[in-house]
Amino acid sequence: MRLQLRTWPDVEGYLGTSTGIIVPIGSTEQHGPSGLIGTDALCAEAIAIGAGERLGAMVGPTINIGMAVHHMAFAGSMTYRPSTLIAVIRDYVMALTAHGFRRFLFVNGHGGNIPTLQSAWYEIHAELRQSGDAAAGAVRFGVQNWWSGAQVKAYADEAFGAAEGSHATCTEISLMQFLYPDHAPVLAAPLDPAVAPHHTFHGPEHYRAVHPDGRIGSDPSLASADHGGRLFDIAVMEAMAAYEKLTTAE
Amino acid sequence: MRLQLRTWPDVEGYLGTSTGIIVPIGSTEQHGPSGLIGTDALCAEAIAIGAGERLGAMVGPTINIGMAVHHMAFAGSMTYRPSTLIAVIRDYVMALTAHGFRRFLFVNGHGGNIPTLQSAWYEIHAELRQSGDAAAGAVRFGVQNWWSGAQVKAYADEAFGAAEGSHATCTEISLMQFLYPDHAPVLAAPLDPAVAPHHTFHGPEHYRAVHPDGRIGSDPSLASADHGGRLFDIAVMEAMAAYEKLTTAE
Amino acid sequence: MRLQLRTWPDVEGYLGTSTGIIVPIGSTEQHGPSGLIGTDALCAEAIAIGAGERLGAMVGPTINIGMAVHHMAFAGSMTYRPSTLIAVIRDYVMALTAHGFRRFLFVNGHGGNIPTLQSAWYEIHAELRQSGDAAAGAVRFGVQNWWSGAQVKAYADEAFGAAEGSHATCTEISLMQFLYPDHAPVLAAPLDPAVAPHHTFHGPEHYRAVHPDGRIGSDPSLASADHGGRLFDIAVMEAMAAYEKLTTAE
Amino acid sequence: MRLQLRTWPDVEGYLGTSTGIIVPIGSTEQHGPSGLIGTDALCAEAIAIGAGERLGAMVGPTINIGMAVHHMAFAGSMTYRPSTLIAVIRDYVMALTAHGFRRFLFVNGHGGNIPTLQSAWYEIHAELRQSGDAAAGAVRFGVQNWWSGAQVKAYADEAFGAAEGSHATCTEISLMQFLYPDHAPVLAAPLDPAVAPHHTFHGPEHYRAVHPDGRIGSDPSLASADHGGRLFDIAVMEAMAAYEKLTTAE
Amino acid sequence: MRLQLRTWPDVEGYLGTSTGIIVPIGSTEQHGPSGLIGTDALCAEAIAIGAGERLGAMVGPTINIGMAVHHMAFAGSMTYRPSTLIAVIRDYVMALTAHGFRRFLFVNGHGGNIPTLQSAWYEIHAELRQSGDAAAGAVRFGVQNWWSGAQVKAYADEAFGAAEGSHATCTEISLMQFLYPDHAPVLAAPLDPAVAPHHTFHGPEHYRAVHPDGRIGSDPSLASADHGGRLFDIAVMEAMAAYEKLTTAE
Amino acid sequence: MRLQLRTWPDVEGYLGTSTGIIVPIGSTEQHGPSGLIGTDALCAEAIAIGAGERLGAMVGPTINIGMAVHHMAFAGSMTYRPSTLIAVIRDYVMALTAHGFRRFLFVNGHGGNIPTLQSAWYEIHAELRQSGDAAAGAVRFGVQNWWSGAQVKAYADEAFGAAEGSHATCTEISLMQFLYPDHAPVLAAPLDPAVAPHHTFHGPEHYRAVHPDGRIGSDPSLASADHGGRLFDIAVMEAMAAYEKLTTAE
Ligand code: NI
Ligand code: NI
Ligand code: NI
Ligand code: NI
Ligand code: NI
Ligand code: NI
Repeated sequence: MRLQLRTWPDVEGYLGTSTGIIVPIGSTEQHGPSGLIGTDALCAEAIAIGAGERLGAMVGPTINIGMAVHHMAFAGSMTYRPSTLIAVIRDYVMALTAHGFRRFLFVNGHGGNIPTLQSAWYEIHAELRQSGDAAAGAVRFGVQNWWSGAQVKAYADEAFGAAEGSHATCTEISLMQFLYPDHAPVLAAPLDPAVAPHHTFHGPEHYRAVHPDGRIGSDPSLASADHGGRLFDIAVMEAMAAYEKLTTAE
Repeated sequence: MRLQLRTWPDVEGYLGTSTGIIVPIGSTEQHGPSGLIGTDALCAEAIAIGAGERLGAMVGPTINIGMAVHHMAFAGSMTYRPSTLIAVIRDYVMALTAHGFRRFLFVNGHGGNIPTLQSAWYEIHAELRQSGDAAAGAVRFGVQNWWSGAQVKAYADEAFGAAEGSHATCTEISLMQFLYPDHAPVLAAPLDPAVAPHHTFHGPEHYRAVHPDGRIGSDPSLASADHGGRLFDIAVMEAMAAYEKLTTAE
Repeated sequence: MRLQLRTWPDVEGYLGTSTGIIVPIGSTEQHGPSGLIGTDALCAEAIAIGAGERLGAMVGPTINIGMAVHHMAFAGSMTYRPSTLIAVIRDYVMALTAHGFRRFLFVNGHGGNIPTLQSAWYEIHAELRQSGDAAAGAVRFGVQNWWSGAQVKAYADEAFGAAEGSHATCTEISLMQFLYPDHAPVLAAPLDPAVAPHHTFHGPEHYRAVHPDGRIGSDPSLASADHGGRLFDIAVMEAMAAYEKLTTAE
Repeated sequence: MRLQLRTWPDVEGYLGTSTGIIVPIGSTEQHGPSGLIGTDALCAEAIAIGAGERLGAMVGPTINIGMAVHHMAFAGSMTYRPSTLIAVIRDYVMALTAHGFRRFLFVNGHGGNIPTLQSAWYEIHAELRQSGDAAAGAVRFGVQNWWSGAQVKAYADEAFGAAEGSHATCTEISLMQFLYPDHAPVLAAPLDPAVAPHHTFHGPEHYRAVHPDGRIGSDPSLASADHGGRLFDIAVMEAMAAYEKLTTAE
Repeated sequence: MRLQLRTWPDVEGYLGTSTGIIVPIGSTEQHGPSGLIGTDALCAEAIAIGAGERLGAMVGPTINIGMAVHHMAFAGSMTYRPSTLIAVIRDYVMALTAHGFRRFLFVNGHGGNIPTLQSAWYEIHAELRQSGDAAAGAVRFGVQNWWSGAQVKAYADEAFGAAEGSHATCTEISLMQFLYPDHAPVLAAPLDPAVAPHHTFHGPEHYRAVHPDGRIGSDPSLASADHGGRLFDIAVMEAMAAYEKLTTAE
Repeated sequence: MRLQLRTWPDVEGYLGTSTGIIVPIGSTEQHGPSGLIGTDALCAEAIAIGAGERLGAMVGPTINIGMAVHHMAFAGSMTYRPSTLIAVIRDYVMALTAHGFRRFLFVNGHGGNIPTLQSAWYEIHAELRQSGDAAAGAVRFGVQNWWSGAQVKAYADEAFGAAEGSHATCTEISLMQFLYPDHAPVLAAPLDPAVAPHHTFHGPEHYRAVHPDGRIGSDPSLASADHGGRLFDIAVMEAMAAYEKLTTAE
């Protein structure tokens, strides 16, 4: 049930039965020469909507730009400063708490969002508490980083092994091939090296210096739409479980 | 050409030929009992992508929450505070100017965004100028409010007359029926009154007091997917013209 | 009745009879070679005070710097960033709501202020609502852009026709000659061209590139103190009507 | 020479001869039952303009709202939060440094502004330095708190002694009677007590608890327009001296 | 080498040999009935100074308040909002980059700081890059969360097993008993239950509801100054290794 | 009684008997060739703790970085921008008011902090008042600038006369020699000139231009640990008196 595709009386009715909502959050950033820039936002959105449909749970609009300062040395990458992303999440949540939403499961597609997302949660807790808001003490947040669910990881280990990597991974590229079969980039030459280097990095310039084509540790040539389809089902199920756990806890 | 569905080398190549980009901006807010909450974001997104495809122009990710404080008395409406939306637009634009984008056409789906959007432009001009950024003096912004293009308005006048209204309009409801044919709400009873009242309003409580079901001045029962399809083509053409004007001006 | 020229017991008494206040807002920016930099603030102030006197309405201190980033390529122009102007208006209004003021008519002298002014209103509505302030739901804002009142425009059309222009207009230069008869600049040579060019502009550098002496579309040599005096009376009456409408509405 | 009453070519010419400017800053706050709310802004403005005229120095627009949180328990008092006032002063100065102004003498009418004014100076120094602005290292600030000039204080000591007080003082009330002779409030009964109490205070509620009518330590019935006229001349001369010292120092 | 206990010529000399600095960051928050509120700041400070002494590395002043919103339902807990902590870390780092410091190892005593610390790093990277600062591309950050170093964890596993817990842990309580032997709290009765509960928590109220005395999962009665002394040595060595890795990497 | 060395039940107990707290605030900035960078923070901390011990009053963690923009041209100096320091003090105080603290005595070691500290107090008063916080109207702030207590000044006059100076003073250097006897810098040559120059300064570059070694007006060679010990006792007594006055006032 996508909030965007419902009416306000629908939402009013829904709030009579549940205070839970799923929030897709991703990023718009380079994913190597064969990965789409929208990967993190579009994967999170698809999984969130998939889980929402099966659960009958409300799904909010996608936060499609994330905290991706470290990707900024590659054309087309976008980022919010952490302070802006905190404001975005704060306003997003505050708008919904005003209507009665209380339990927020973020389905996240980008590792770089995690620190700022958690910072935003506490910015909100602090504000709610200080202002004596009706939602203070009742709001709960959770996050499902879809790529790190136990079963997604098990699948990735078996299917891709070490070539899964940690950015522009086989898993996310597979999922995008499944979701956007017509948009798979055609490469003039194979990726070189096949498996990308994997380093600690410091800021955007250093990131590019040590990962010249943008990938970290992955060989996305192993990706396929078939894998993507199976990963989608697994990721949706894991998101559903996370939502149920968050919303049914006392 | 959607930025999200391209790779970073694609964007690098594109920037060799153009510094223009189309930015969809909408809102997530009530649109009356028969209008979808995502109307403003989803219409703007579709028109922007439509124009981008025909033009071969880059289209950025959608800013899907807007400045809708006045709609907040209806369940499900979301809003950024103006100060947050300024930060969002500022970071969005700054990320892209860093790569070389210079001309930004916003395809806007929500009248309430206009003041804050224009405020954001000057916040950016001021910052670029003060910091001596390479983009200072070269960045240009334009906005196409799709519903107020001359031909869209002419169509609406003829098709809907005074019942077009100014919120939850026949035009935007038609466009959504065309774009999302499976999501048209089914009403238990006809809208009452058929044509909604139309008042000046002051803040969210007063908005609801004078527009009890959320519509302003419209009778969206006149909307249809057929109208929507024709309006889509017109709106796309008007957005294309606005983009060409913005990007070809010296 | 100027707030600055009253005592606190006077204001306490006034609040027993009215919750309305007139707020002059202008700008300090270039007005071409023959226009004074303070035109927008001083015109708004004079009209606001004129209306306040005839109405017995309270008039607050003048917000004399506005959003004028686009004028910054001319010496002496000043500007608030939009984010600063929002904070200024927010604090101005919040101080007065704390005492019981509820209806705020801004008499505005500068078109460039309008988007930020409207953004500020919603920033305030959002904050009042979230904090559960006593003024939430009761505060109302209006703006009288004095130069665009129906009768001012009719006068300008008849007196100046197309040479009225849209910056450093005959109307505002006339009003300044009426208000500050001793400060009319003496030009070494006539303005050249007599009627200034009129272009769309993008940021301060581009503004100056296409409007080299700062005027937009006007021939202020047509201005006179006589016109100014008549325009003053018209503008005051239109501001009075706007105030009465705002303060008497239920 | 008031910036507001000059043209941009005038300012350009002035900057060829001087980089100095006088900035009036005051407050809009209660001044007891017999003092006008605008006292601090209007006195500072008059003294600044007086000094500017005699010096041929540029005078900027008046910052007419100050930091007056402690006066907010009296109707009609206005205040900027300190953070807002810092932004106001920052934008004011930054606009002028962009044109070439470098030495800023604030003529201040309100003691409560001093800490925030000084904070703003360092906020600006920090920003200029970090951004490598052309004005970094060259900008200088000074403040003339007119009421505490040596000769103003000597006059006050002799004329009013201990009854001068420290808020709604005989000195400032006299100056207002000189400047605004038609606006002297008429009291129904003499002030009681004649000389107001004088306490340390903590926040707005406590301020009012210990200074019930708003005055601190003063007996403004001793004020007169005659005193005001003489004080005006003294204050103007002291402001002139401060300006010359600031602008001629190497 | 503590920055606070050196002179500016000392620092100038040091910068000729190294651009590295160690930054202690902790928190001031409840640590259960037997743990001191300053535990996280004081442990981090002692380890940072210990490592700095042995390395001859500069150690900055301690950031002694952290992000501890979740502890705020217990008396004496303090917190920065995440947005404030970002500003604190930003200013801390920017002051030092202005002098030439480039590599910053944070020795951290509080898990709750990690997200905000990482957010701050990217806020800084973004600002340095946008402003074209000399330090852009050269600044590197690292963090040593002392309690989670491999050898500290190994020691804790062996010494305390599952009773180590995750807040008010045996490890940190031991370290404090070693560092502040005279300040060990005396309990009127044993902790009850001996091993504290361990739950997921949501905001400060919920934290206290599920961890009534503030501890999470620990039995700090197992702590001792002896353990603390050994843990101190281990933690210092691990911090030294982290510093050497950060500062010697190309 | 240091908050950092107490447990949360201790603080709960303390709040049953007192709502007062002492807050050390200093700076980390150059103090000339023979003064330690941490002088202002470490002096304030020691005096605050000394007073707290003798009074049985709670002492919070030290704000060890202050507003020292003007010292930034000397290596190792650190500073918060004024806006950051306001946020720091605001969060510090708000965390404690949430637990019931109401009276805050700042023991300050740095003159440059005073304006920002006072600004912060009013930022807090404004926020408490607007949000209807329970602490509004009850919070009181005081500051003891230890070096300007009447008896400290009398001692300094007698012991050091004009050579006391106003930065890197004999008084503070003495106190540091008493507190940190092992860290007195050894100079290769006597300070030259013996007594430093004393000028008005404008921003960090100008500060260094007129005070080349960082000192202002002092000859710290007159300092001694003996003087420091006696000054410590005096300063502690004056801080105690200030605390008692602040906390016992009705
Ligand atoms: Ni990804
Ligand atoms: Ni709409
Ligand atoms: Ni104008
Ligand atoms: Ni005054
Ligand atoms: Ni801890
Ligand atoms: Ni000092």
